[in-house]
Amino acid sequence: MAGTVGDLGEMALVEAITARMAGGAAVLLGPGDDAAVVSAEDGRFVATTDVLVEGRHFRRDWSSAHDIGSRAAAANMADVVAMGAVPTALLVGLAVPADREVDWVLELADGLSAEAATAGAAVAGGDVVRSDTVVVSVTALGTLQGRSPVTRSGARPGDLVAVAGRLGWAAAGLAVLSRGFRSPRTLVEAHRRPAPPYAEGPRAAALGATAMVDVSDGLVADLGHVARASGVAVSLHSDAFHVPQEFQDTARALSADPLHWLLGGGDDHALAACFPAEVDLPMAWSVVGRVEEGEGVLVDGTPWTGPTGWAAF
Amino acid sequence: MAGTVGDLGEMALVEAITARMAGGAAVLLGPGDDAAVVSAEDGRFVATTDVLVEGRHFRRDWSSAHDIGSRAAAANMADVVAMGAVPTALLVGLAVPADREVDWVLELADGLSAEAATAGAAVAGGDVVRSDTVVVSVTALGTLQGRSPVTRSGARPGDLVAVAGRLGWAAAGLAVLSRGFRSPRTLVEAHRRPAPPYAEGPRAAALGATAMVDVSDGLVADLGHVARASGVAVSLHSDAFHVPQEFQDTARALSADPLHWLLGGGDDHALAACFPAEVDLPMAWSVVGRVEEGEGVLVDGTPWTGPTGWAAF
Repeated sequence: MAGTVGDLGEMALVEAITARMAGGAAVLLGPGDDAAVVSAEDGRFVATTDVLVEGRHFRRDWSSAHDIGSRAAAANMADVVAMGAVPTALLVGLAVPADREVDWVLELADGLSAEAATAGAAVAGGDVVRSDTVVVSVTALGTLQGRSPVTRSGARPGDLVAVAGRLGWAAAGLAVLSRGFRSPRTLVEAHRRPAPPYAEGPRAAALGATAMVDVSDGLVADLGHVARASGVAVSLHSDAFHVPQEFQDTARALSADPLHWLLGGGDDHALAACFPAEVDLPMAWSVVGRVEEGEGVLVDGTPWTGPTGWAAF
Repeated sequence: MAGTVGDLGEMALVEAITARMAGGAAVLLGPGDDAAVVSAEDGRFVATTDVLVEGRHFRRDWSSAHDIGSRAAAANMADVVAMGAVPTALLVGLAVPADREVDWVLELADGLSAEAATAGAAVAGGDVVRSDTVVVSVTALGTLQGRSPVTRSGARPGDLVAVAGRLGWAAAGLAVLSRGFRSPRTLVEAHRRPAPPYAEGPRAAALGATAMVDVSDGLVADLGHVARASGVAVSLHSDAFHVPQEFQDTARALSADPLHWLLGGGDDHALAACFPAEVDLPMAWSVVGRVEEGEGVLVDGTPWTGPTGWAAF
């Protein structure tokens, strides 16, 4: 669809976006009314909001509109699965300049919708307004299917600490892009489009996970939240992490420490969880440490002094 | 709390905001984890998002931070009650420049929280990020308490059309401010802080309302959505509207047509609903017209040619 959103106008833009949105099993009433209606089978639901700002959380020269939509959806749904819930619906607030191309907005919407479908959810509603800066705010909703939510505060000394999903790939991809390179593709693509292990959150909850977070700020930073909320120490073993060859090669080429990406890099939206020691963990989970008495996050027995991830201000 | 949000940092800012937030009856798990948990007693919930942008939807020289927070909450919760639901929780995404005063952000949070409490809801979570422009995106959630949602598409010929809440006051207040005046206070305050009739949405649903909207774009524009979705015409009678003396005096002083404010002015978040003719309406509702065969919105038998409210682009 040619032209800018200013030419098209709000009503027609919303209609064009809505026409591209697929329904979802849990969305009882989708876009087009004052509010959506979503099912919450067990009488509760989880809800979380994240805001992405152009130039700060994404760059148009590094990511396509589809990638940006996909990433906004993924970042939010990772928070839902980190509670042990299954994503059901997204609401999207989009602030966009009047001179932005309609096609860019529609591709963003497609990215949101496609990523939602990957996790079994659908876009249920939203709002589009004019702004000088592009701001994408997504609310993700999910169902606990009768399970208790897995919070950050339930870790107990003796628990295993395990991770599912990629760690540091997005940070490595960002480092590659920042130096003006476009490859290795796997790392650049990991920055552009995170692939949170959606199924592993509910699975971890069903297995009895005592605490869980999604890794958005970096593993040490996010496990720091768990340690603080649970009143424990988290002790990680650096040799427990699998470091792919391409990752090591890229780190060497950029004179970077791969462990900094692994432990300090955010935006992959992996899951980190604590489990009672007797749990038989599925293959998708790698044990990387243990919960102990104390406080903070230790790496190989000492406090982590590398980068600790993202700061909003 | 002195200083800017950039000085304070994200973690401390989120902690300061969270510390001011009261819990809510439906909020089972509030801010501080990956996601909130909210109850949905009948196995469904309603959800809606609105985005407000500084300089476009509000001005700092016309509205306090408390007013802006209050208005953002009100605009969203009005969409919830327009479905016949009771608001339960808000999620707030706030994009704010690093040089904005911490106190301004805390007052905005207080406004959100206080307005939520007015409707029986609470702030359950959110996100704060840095941006050049202030963008406040609010998601409001609500419970239908076993009732069917009241959509825009159920109006039938013969239904009465009725409104609850103030109409045109916010537009009149905005006109006053735009001319550089600060009074009449009642109109200026109506712009700064809308007072949606929260209890009337669920009440209308219980009384059998066939269609309902909140008046955010202007009565004619919003009833136009009902007419289109329901495949009917809405016929309004201008002499059915109560026009307060202060409203008339202000219109005369500004050489404005009070009917333009009443029928074209948005942002009051009144409710407009259609009811079967036999319904005995409570005092809060004024009958202002009737649903007929046909299409569009008629005022005194002819298509409305006055202003039709807000356009986002």
